[in-house]
Amino acid sequence: MEILKQRILAEGRNLGRGILKVDSFLNHQVDPALMMAVGQHLAEPFKGLGVTKVLTAEISGIAPALMTALVLGVPVIYARKSKPITMPAEIYRESAPSHTKGSVVELLVSPEFLSHADTVLIVDDFLATGNTISGLLRLAQQAEARVVGVAAVIEKAFEGGRVTLEGMGLRVCSAAIIEKMTDHDIIFA
Amino acid sequence: MEILKQRILAEGRNLGRGILKVDSFLNHQVDPALMMAVGQHLAEPFKGLGVTKVLTAEISGIAPALMTALVLGVPVIYARKSKPITMPAEIYRESAPSHTKGSVVELLVSPEFLSHADTVLIVDDFLATGNTISGLLRLAQQAEARVVGVAAVIEKAFEGGRVTLEGMGLRVCSAAIIEKMTDHDIIFA
Repeated sequence: MEILKQRILAEGRNLGRGILKVDSFLNHQVDPALMMAVGQHLAEPFKGLGVTKVLTAEISGIAPALMTALVLGVPVIYARKSKPITMPAEIYRESAPSHTKGSVVELLVSPEFLSHADTVLIVDDFLATGNTISGLLRLAQQAEARVVGVAAVIEKAFEGGRVTLEGMGLRVCSAAIIEKMTDHDIIFA
Repeated sequence: MEILKQRILAEGRNLGRGILKVDSFLNHQVDPALMMAVGQHLAEPFKGLGVTKVLTAEISGIAPALMTALVLGVPVIYARKSKPITMPAEIYRESAPSHTKGSVVELLVSPEFLSHADTVLIVDDFLATGNTISGLLRLAQQAEARVVGVAAVIEKAFEGGRVTLEGMGLRVCSAAIIEKMTDHDIIFA
């Protein structure tokens, strides 16, 4: 997506250790019109595949996942990091190491909303090592749901997540793929 | 909004102590088409007032705030509960007691995205006592931004938040107003 690449080049900041700050349109302040365009882009390859649910992780996955789900005409579920009092006792629970937080993040989904009858598209803000997305994948597997693919707003190709996911037979779509980040440059694939 | 009221009646569950579970379309699983309709409803009274930013709190405020911001054609900022490494050292910080969590929630916003030049609409999933919304209001005040109003998906009128906010001269809009919840009934205003 050319408009996304332009925004990354104009507003993205490489904070080092592979961390890209895009807080002006994706991770703290969000541009809804850009997210709508991203949602259209990410939904496209998965139309006609019978997707019944979009699955994401709070917090930064919510905006792009919501727009992708809007385009596909299905609900979105966001895995919670901590258990709200509205969640039942028995839940699907996974954990994933977080690159940017330097800790382990919990991923909790209620069985009320994910089951063997579901066909799932996983959407997240970043595809890096694929750790969070693999956690979401395991959640879907716990629910015996079928996962048809993974879609991310920004892929950091140099972290190798795509190889892992495609190795599992998943279709992977990213709206912008970063090949390399240097101190001064962001280079797209 | 009639369609929202129907969804609350069909899917909402009164968990007691004033807590309404609407995890099937708002707080865990989200219905994007319903959120789009809610966004249109909530944006309506604030069109033409020069809103430059929608401000919300993670997590459950994000979906309705994003759609409201899409309709108004402005960015949305979500106050973070913990500080990500992408945030600068100097930030706006407030805290608010959380009804459903029984603890105090931090609300953090980067000065990069909120300033005296902004005209703000605050959007959240629930308007109950108004504690979270008042915290967001203080954040906006720290930034010297002007707040024109408050919009919520579901208002629990019996918790009195509207009185507090209107007392501050704020325009308040809710997509559904619950007057009373009993063990068996949800009664709208």
